[in-house]
Amino acid sequence: MQQALNEAREALKKDEVPVGAVIVSNNRIIAKAHNLTETLNDVTAHAEMLAITAAAECLGGKYLINCTLYVTLEPCFMCGGALSWAQLGRLVFGARDEKRGFSNFTPSPLHPKTEIIGGIMEEECSRLVKSFFKGKR
Amino acid sequence: MQQALNEAREALKKDEVPVGAVIVSNNRIIAKAHNLTETLNDVTAHAEMLAITAAAECLGGKYLINCTLYVTLEPCFMCGGALSWAQLGRLVFGARDEKRGFSNFTPSPLHPKTEIIGGIMEEECSRLVKSFFKGKR
Repeated sequence: MQQALNEAREALKKDEVPVGAVIVSNNRIIAKAHNLTETLNDVTAHAEMLAITAAAECLGGKYLINCTLYVTLEPCFMCGGALSWAQLGRLVFGARDEKRGFSNFTPSPLHPKTEIIGGIMEEECSRLVKSFFKGKR
Repeated sequence: MQQALNEAREALKKDEVPVGAVIVSNNRIIAKAHNLTETLNDVTAHAEMLAITAAAECLGGKYLINCTLYVTLEPCFMCGGALSWAQLGRLVFGARDEKRGFSNFTPSPLHPKTEIIGGIMEEECSRLVKSFFKGKR
């Protein structure tokens, strides 16, 4: 999650909503990404989406069954849907997103086999996003 | 929708799940795409996602407020989420997707201002997808 936080800080430097993601397979980081929606002018360029694409490229297969995704913010419904299609093995997220997070939806958009762990380094992850939006007001 | 069906047929030629999408702005087609998840080895490469990215590139802005998306199959949760982030003006889809369609989720992942019209050329759109999966069995 520390690596994902580093990615989030990279996003912050580019004046992007600071969210970072890292995908691990067999104890090895196979993808790192941060939110680039403004830079790429593309609503689909969330950290998770970019990491999924990069991880599939690295693995040579589109399924992430034996992978763990670490992400600083609870994935939104779009990213949750993508993680479901990828059949992600394990999701570890930092801060909760009470408004846009996948867990606000019924039924869950995630794959039933995906293990979900939330609230890891929550305070640090949350502080980063909150300070960004505070600075925008 | 005829143009979206043509895109879906392009997907079929590549042995992809035959779904096509077209985005219209000011009576002009600004993006056309078809599902490329197998070709690109990427679960995020649904027709709608590729069309959203292309349309934003064309418009020079990431919001699709005055645009209509025509898609042959009801968007999934991931694509519904992306359309919400893009604040799509109008969604017109062909066949319903009873299993994976966005309308199976509560609350709706789409933006509250998006006008939704389903079932346009439904039979033709549905036939294409069904025949694809029948051929796979």
